Amino acid sequence: MFKCNQSRLKDSIEQFSRFGATDNGGVTRLSLSKEDLEARDYFCECCKNLGLDVRIDDMGNIYATLPGKKDVPPIMMGSHLDSVVKGGRFDGVLGVLTALEAVRTIIDNGIELEIPLTIVNWTNEEGARFDPAMMSSGVITNKFDKEKMLQSTDKDGITFKEALKESGYEGSIENRLKEAAAFIELHIEQGPILETEKVEIGVVEGVLGMCCYEVSISGESDHAGTTPMKMRKDPLFLATKLISILIEQLGKVDEELVYTIGRMNVTPNIHTVIPNKVVFTIDARHKDPMKIIEVEQIIEALPAEEAGCYIQKQKLWGRDTVVFESEICDEIEQACDLHGYSSKRLYSGAGHNAQFIASITATAMIFVPSINGKSHCEEEETSFEDCAKGADVLLTTVLKLQTKFAKKEAFI
Amino acid sequence: MFKCNQSRLKDSIEQFSRFGATDNGGVTRLSLSKEDLEARDYFCECCKNLGLDVRIDDMGNIYATLPGKKDVPPIMMGSHLDSVVKGGRFDGVLGVLTALEAVRTIIDNGIELEIPLTIVNWTNEEGARFDPAMMSSGVITNKFDKEKMLQSTDKDGITFKEALKESGYEGSIENRLKEAAAFIELHIEQGPILETEKVEIGVVEGVLGMCCYEVSISGESDHAGTTPMKMRKDPLFLATKLISILIEQLGKVDEELVYTIGRMNVTPNIHTVIPNKVVFTIDARHKDPMKIIEVEQIIEALPAEEAGCYIQKQKLWGRDTVVFESEICDEIEQACDLHGYSSKRLYSGAGHNAQFIASITATAMIFVPSINGKSHCEEEETSFEDCAKGADVLLTTVLKLQTKFAKKEAFI
Repeated sequence: MFKCNQSRLKDSIEQFSRFGATDNGGVTRLSLSKEDLEARDYFCECCKNLGLDVRIDDMGNIYATLPGKKDVPPIMMGSHLDSVVKGGRFDGVLGVLTALEAVRTIIDNGIELEIPLTIVNWTNEEGARFDPAMMSSGVITNKFDKEKMLQSTDKDGITFKEALKESGYEGSIENRLKEAAAFIELHIEQGPILETEKVEIGVVEGVLGMCCYEVSISGESDHAGTTPMKMRKDPLFLATKLISILIEQLGKVDEELVYTIGRMNVTPNIHTVIPNKVVFTIDARHKDPMKIIEVEQIIEALPAEEAGCYIQKQKLWGRDTVVFESEICDEIEQACDLHGYSSKRLYSGAGHNAQFIASITATAMIFVPSINGKSHCEEEETSFEDCAKGADVLLTTVLKLQTKFAKKEAFI
Repeated sequence: MFKCNQSRLKDSIEQFSRFGATDNGGVTRLSLSKEDLEARDYFCECCKNLGLDVRIDDMGNIYATLPGKKDVPPIMMGSHLDSVVKGGRFDGVLGVLTALEAVRTIIDNGIELEIPLTIVNWTNEEGARFDPAMMSSGVITNKFDKEKMLQSTDKDGITFKEALKESGYEGSIENRLKEAAAFIELHIEQGPILETEKVEIGVVEGVLGMCCYEVSISGESDHAGTTPMKMRKDPLFLATKLISILIEQLGKVDEELVYTIGRMNVTPNIHTVIPNKVVFTIDARHKDPMKIIEVEQIIEALPAEEAGCYIQKQKLWGRDTVVFESEICDEIEQACDLHGYSSKRLYSGAGHNAQFIASITATAMIFVPSINGKSHCEEEETSFEDCAKGADVLLTTVLKLQTKFAKKEAFI
């Protein structure tokens, strides 16, 4: 059984951490920024030095392929090199670098592949510079309209189209992923479950379905000192009541349901003035689509009018649960067993490129533990040992899969 | 019984509405701004045309005096000419213009005063340009330190000292109000009580005591999709719970207690991130100081720690209840009866210059109804008829008082 080189993987992670390094150990590597281009250039250089065939598609996605004996659709591994502002040095990039480490180990050990193996870097996964997130995996899987995406604009008014052209990473539509045998994305968990339960590898069975609503409550501003309580139309007091009701009712749906009020704005937000408007969001996620429907019913059942205020509920967006390929999950689990790494099946609460790629090929994900469950912040951390364990599992899984594909034992 | 001239008062109000007029019928007349100086200049011109003795003190307060037979401390009337941004055309200015109308009526009718009568315009009552509110009445009554006030800075970095010097309204400390027989401030109610109860005049017995707290709840930010509910330290859910408790407990204190959560800020305020901090203010007012103490005890009794979050309570400020001179209130009430205007005794929930002046002379206030209870907004409205009724009551009250003072029947 082959193992990756933990020391070399550590060097890679540390090298890539320099591209956009922040003062507090994180990275700011917005998509197609100078820092992202440094990371892309270095990644391409590494791949070319290994003799891989590097191609770029029309969305700037990079595919670096180690050929197999047969010229058939490849097994793909990878994630993204971009980050949020003051993000961590593991989110995304670890999926690319463990894939690179797997390929290096294959080459080092002179393993001859039956079918090709491709490392991929998806452009603009975070959506932190150009909205939306997972833009380019979304375009090649027809989730997003390319022309609309090209017009997405950053805070300085630069369009994605301009940034892509300027970057030198505008490749050919011919190079887009059209067919693949499988796709495996390794990622940090971004949550506390693996660490808390002392599990080394997460076998990701899918991505939670979700809904996100915005609730707006309109009341009437009046002077805090001169308006008797009975004459008020206070949207903040009503918001408090409605949120209490939501918390109570959502708490009964299912213990695995997660729900968050992350954004809340009060207008005019002056201590001596009764507010006239309160707007808050509610984000809820669960793997069972029926539970999401239940959540939507609870939110929709909020009154339209109460306490002299008007309540509007608007669904901002939703996502259907994505279920990954169980056969790949089984292979990942068996790879963990072979290496003696503990594993746990779970769903991802966060979105990933894999959720779009799953619509065109057999897909699954591997999670490694996030220390304190942190991500999208400079404190984001995963031990190099856990990173290497993830790379081992990734390597073992793709080797097993390529043998199966070659023997046509696989699911496709 | 003398009556004011409603048509002339209406003209005055409309004339002053032009200084800083906004598109929607309000005014923006920040203290010592170009618009405020236009209003001040015109006010001084009107007073001088009436033969009044106009003096300015070192805080820019304007005193315009109609002499009496005796050279003794005057009866004072007035309020302020400044406004908030997009404020109304009655708040403050009505107290100055009804005083001016009272003086005009006295002169028109050839009434010889026993003791002097002074119209006053207090500088920077709103505190909208230079913090704090009621700055200049506060300085002359030793509530505020003059040197500190001079350093108060507007949003463009201009100090009050600079603005005052530049305005031409920096007068002499010798002109400050040192002694007065009484002070009466007419003002719009800024609340809905008079209108709702169909009462024409409010006899203001005092200003409610108040306290204002800031409650900060610190929790921990995590990913909305990946953090199980049981592992969260969510300050927004806790804030909702604590506010519900506050609302419930404050609701039991006394039906006249008013309490407001006007400001609430959530950090980082992103829909997919569990907040790490929620800060809200709570403002509570009541005429009985014991009730305010009860409120403070309720707020202070909030836990310091709960649900993994830390709760801090900070008292931002407080105000003791100010009780006005009952003999003046009686006179105002009798003046209402004489004119056949309905009246109601009440407390002011808002702050006014009168609350400071009450510490140096016998003071009371007259309220006229606010349509829909609105103030500090362009929709602020009071009928000209109600304005004139207020002026009638003000006139009758000061005439009665000056007779009493002359006969030494009054309270001082």
